Amino acid sequence: MILNIDVHLAYQLSQPTDLLLQIEAADLDDQTLLDSQIDFFDVPDFTRVPADEALGNRIWLKADGLFRCTYSARVQIARSAPDVRTLEAVPLHLLPGDTVRYLMPSRYCPSDEFQTFVAAEFGHLRGGAQIAAIRDWIYGAFSYVPGVSNAQTTALDSFVQRQGICRDFAHVLVTLARAATIPARFASVYAPGVTPPDFHAVAEVYLDGGWHLVDATGMSPAETIARIGVGADAASVAFLNIFGQADFVAQSVSVRAE
Amino acid sequence: MILNIDVHLAYQLSQPTDLLLQIEAADLDDQTLLDSQIDFFDVPDFTRVPADEALGNRIWLKADGLFRCTYSARVQIARSAPDVRTLEAVPLHLLPGDTVRYLMPSRYCPSDEFQTFVAAEFGHLRGGAQIAAIRDWIYGAFSYVPGVSNAQTTALDSFVQRQGICRDFAHVLVTLARAATIPARFASVYAPGVTPPDFHAVAEVYLDGGWHLVDATGMSPAETIARIGVGADAASVAFLNIFGQADFVAQSVSVRAE
Amino acid sequence: MILNIDVHLAYQLSQPTDLLLQIEAADLDDQTLLDSQIDFFDVPDFTRVPADEALGNRIWLKADGLFRCTYSARVQIARSAPDVRTLEAVPLHLLPGDTVRYLMPSRYCPSDEFQTFVAAEFGHLRGGAQIAAIRDWIYGAFSYVPGVSNAQTTALDSFVQRQGICRDFAHVLVTLARAATIPARFASVYAPGVTPPDFHAVAEVYLDGGWHLVDATGMSPAETIARIGVGADAASVAFLNIFGQADFVAQSVSVRAE
Amino acid sequence: MILNIDVHLAYQLSQPTDLLLQIEAADLDDQTLLDSQIDFFDVPDFTRVPADEALGNRIWLKADGLFRCTYSARVQIARSAPDVRTLEAVPLHLLPGDTVRYLMPSRYCPSDEFQTFVAAEFGHLRGGAQIAAIRDWIYGAFSYVPGVSNAQTTALDSFVQRQGICRDFAHVLVTLARAATIPARFASVYAPGVTPPDFHAVAEVYLDGGWHLVDATGMSPAETIARIGVGADAASVAFLNIFGQADFVAQSVSVRAE
Repeated sequence: MILNIDVHLAYQLSQPTDLLLQIEAADLDDQTLLDSQIDFFDVPDFTRVPADEALGNRIWLKADGLFRCTYSARVQIARSAPDVRTLEAVPLHLLPGDTVRYLMPSRYCPSDEFQTFVAAEFGHLRGGAQIAAIRDWIYGAFSYVPGVSNAQTTALDSFVQRQGICRDFAHVLVTLARAATIPARFASVYAPGVTPPDFHAVAEVYLDGGWHLVDATGMSPAETIARIGVGADAASVAFLNIFGQADFVAQSVSVRAE
Repeated sequence: MILNIDVHLAYQLSQPTDLLLQIEAADLDDQTLLDSQIDFFDVPDFTRVPADEALGNRIWLKADGLFRCTYSARVQIARSAPDVRTLEAVPLHLLPGDTVRYLMPSRYCPSDEFQTFVAAEFGHLRGGAQIAAIRDWIYGAFSYVPGVSNAQTTALDSFVQRQGICRDFAHVLVTLARAATIPARFASVYAPGVTPPDFHAVAEVYLDGGWHLVDATGMSPAETIARIGVGADAASVAFLNIFGQADFVAQSVSVRAE
Repeated sequence: MILNIDVHLAYQLSQPTDLLLQIEAADLDDQTLLDSQIDFFDVPDFTRVPADEALGNRIWLKADGLFRCTYSARVQIARSAPDVRTLEAVPLHLLPGDTVRYLMPSRYCPSDEFQTFVAAEFGHLRGGAQIAAIRDWIYGAFSYVPGVSNAQTTALDSFVQRQGICRDFAHVLVTLARAATIPARFASVYAPGVTPPDFHAVAEVYLDGGWHLVDATGMSPAETIARIGVGADAASVAFLNIFGQADFVAQSVSVRAE
Repeated sequence: MILNIDVHLAYQLSQPTDLLLQIEAADLDDQTLLDSQIDFFDVPDFTRVPADEALGNRIWLKADGLFRCTYSARVQIARSAPDVRTLEAVPLHLLPGDTVRYLMPSRYCPSDEFQTFVAAEFGHLRGGAQIAAIRDWIYGAFSYVPGVSNAQTTALDSFVQRQGICRDFAHVLVTLARAATIPARFASVYAPGVTPPDFHAVAEVYLDGGWHLVDATGMSPAETIARIGVGADAASVAFLNIFGQADFVAQSVSVRAE
């Protein structure tokens, strides 16, 4: 599958402000950048630095006045996405060092609070079967409701309120997976099936020796997803961090499958 | 300075249980392992994996019955520890990629809540001078009180209650530093001046192009500290994670300067 | 049923300290005090004031050194306890003024967070049938585990962790009832079936024009309960508030059915 | 002082919905209702019930479609408002029974978390002098910023973020007063100096044998305030509780001094 991605962002700044941007699709084994172009208006220079796990990049820049950015890319997705139910858990003592931090609780994913719940509801399952059951439970029990969550909302809040957006669905899945001692992280992605069109977020779980994309909203099969970056949770992969005051002007995200 | 470290741990397990141990002092440019010996009793084998930022190691093992571990090391500390007040902040858009995650909130360090407080109380300062002022404020306003915090206690709780142990002092410092947009992380360490003797924890801040140790408890100057590992907060560098049930039997930590 | 209640409390105080005690069984229509005796040692005087809703009393006193209190009572319980499932909800606009505050969230019962959950899981039921379903769900899904909760633990924490003691079971029931717009409050009580013997706590719900006792732990039928006091949650009916420092010396609670 | 109060509310309901309204100024010793008129459009009937502490009323009603309410009143304020600094604390063991619940933590006022802070910062003061110092500290350290708080925001959140609206200022004052063992409650009020014109909220503290109004926002002297109702915190005295879905249509509040 080939995705055509077009993004436009505009913010008004009242003084020189540091920005950290993470919107470029990553060039990876399972997703190839065929074409990619990012442009800023009136920004003298910027610095691209590797993002978490060296998966994709972040861009540091300093802007003033009207900040405008356009990004266009064509990405070929060539991802074998096995049925998650068939995947085996990796025994804990065989987990690679770089997966360990994704067993631990993070800002929005306090997995340490959920061990009893996970043991009671999903403790009879293991590995991919357990993840699939958690994903299906979230999909069935939660409502996709824009506007009910904000930058303080954690997976614990979402778990209680049973509603949220893609960010919240991913946080709950990541949290419950970690509580089941399966490494799980948060992925910021593009996907064509998202309604309304926007940046999207899904979970990644470490099973059978690799990371696998899982979307509890049911919006985007793994074969259709272009990853931007990964991290412990949404705190690590915001599409834009503004270190100062800014007024929103405009934003559009378009993702089309050829 | 040369430190002699001796640790003994014992836990009773009722079934085969995965353990993740992080107690070995790291071998680094500014701290040289002269001697190091770790022993387990009745544990057939174990796996050492790199810890976060490849700074030090974690050990995976599977144990049953009485788990006992002894660790002894001699570590030469050769750290130039400049007065933190003299260190310059690195402009945000010049921060290396691998420091960015330490600008972001984490499980115990919800720095996103503290921007107004930091701006109001410490906004007139920059860089190392700002960190020193934060450190001195914590040292003056907080009481070192064992037993008031637990595994759920965040920097926000400690900030309100103004008491805690080394873990909590480090969390508050890390949180306020991040709110001031200075990368900060949590270090699990050995230090000779800790009373009562125990594992210790301090903050690390990124200033002038490097990481610098800062201890808000005032117990341990940077020149006397042997680092075990670093991470976003205490969730990332527990000395022992037990993935199951265990009964505490014994623990001793001794750190002596030669 | 006649209950024989014997309580002994002892605390060591290091300076003159205000205490607020709420341990006397209330004399009510459905529970008659046959005999009641409270004694303090070395406390010059004390003041009995009405407790919340004028149901029972609190005792203010000022003590120093070793504070000892003994309380003995015989209470005749004559309570018709209908099957909660048969009780009708009172339409909201017909609720008496003094029940309204028990519709609202309180310190340990943030019912405002649970409206979606209650609507999804129990929204097909009304009144007593809804309360019975909530009670049975808590009883089935939660484990009675002493020591996992503390004075900060809210119903939200307990809901996530699915464990706790009588206080926590009552908080969750009160919270979910309020989220279902049924007035609910917390009752501090004595009951003979509590293991280990201790002060007990249950919920009260307002149905069919009266308050009805409901115990989600399953330990104590309504016919066997002697009420001490009621309030919004545990914050309102602690058996002892100590306004200062005190060391626990001893406590015993005995409740026997004649 | 005589206040002229005019309120208009309009909400669109999609089905018959229970509403609980608390907007009528109370008729009290220190504020006399000279004139008062409330009208609903297309609401067949309603029930007035006493509010908390029998101070003022709440109105239950059931409405459908466009709900409109107009309220007009003239209130004569005749309140002797002594300098709060001159008021003596009532010794705890002499507090009346009906003030005790206002010593306890509530939904938005977790005073149990703030004892160390209050002791450290305000522990050298007593009674009204302590309340005045707390009020002045809040006034100086906090920013009045509409839109940063919502229905979940507690005094702990506001304390950390140091910003909010009248509700939040009152919550912090109530919380710190209770942590200082001075009974404190939340009052929903009208006052002429509020900018922009709206319902207002202040704290009440129990000193010298009576309740005294204190406004940490500095907007409204006690002599200019008309009380609607009181309660543990904002959860108890919302001007409107809607038990169902509603769309906001219009709201205006005008308070003018003759």
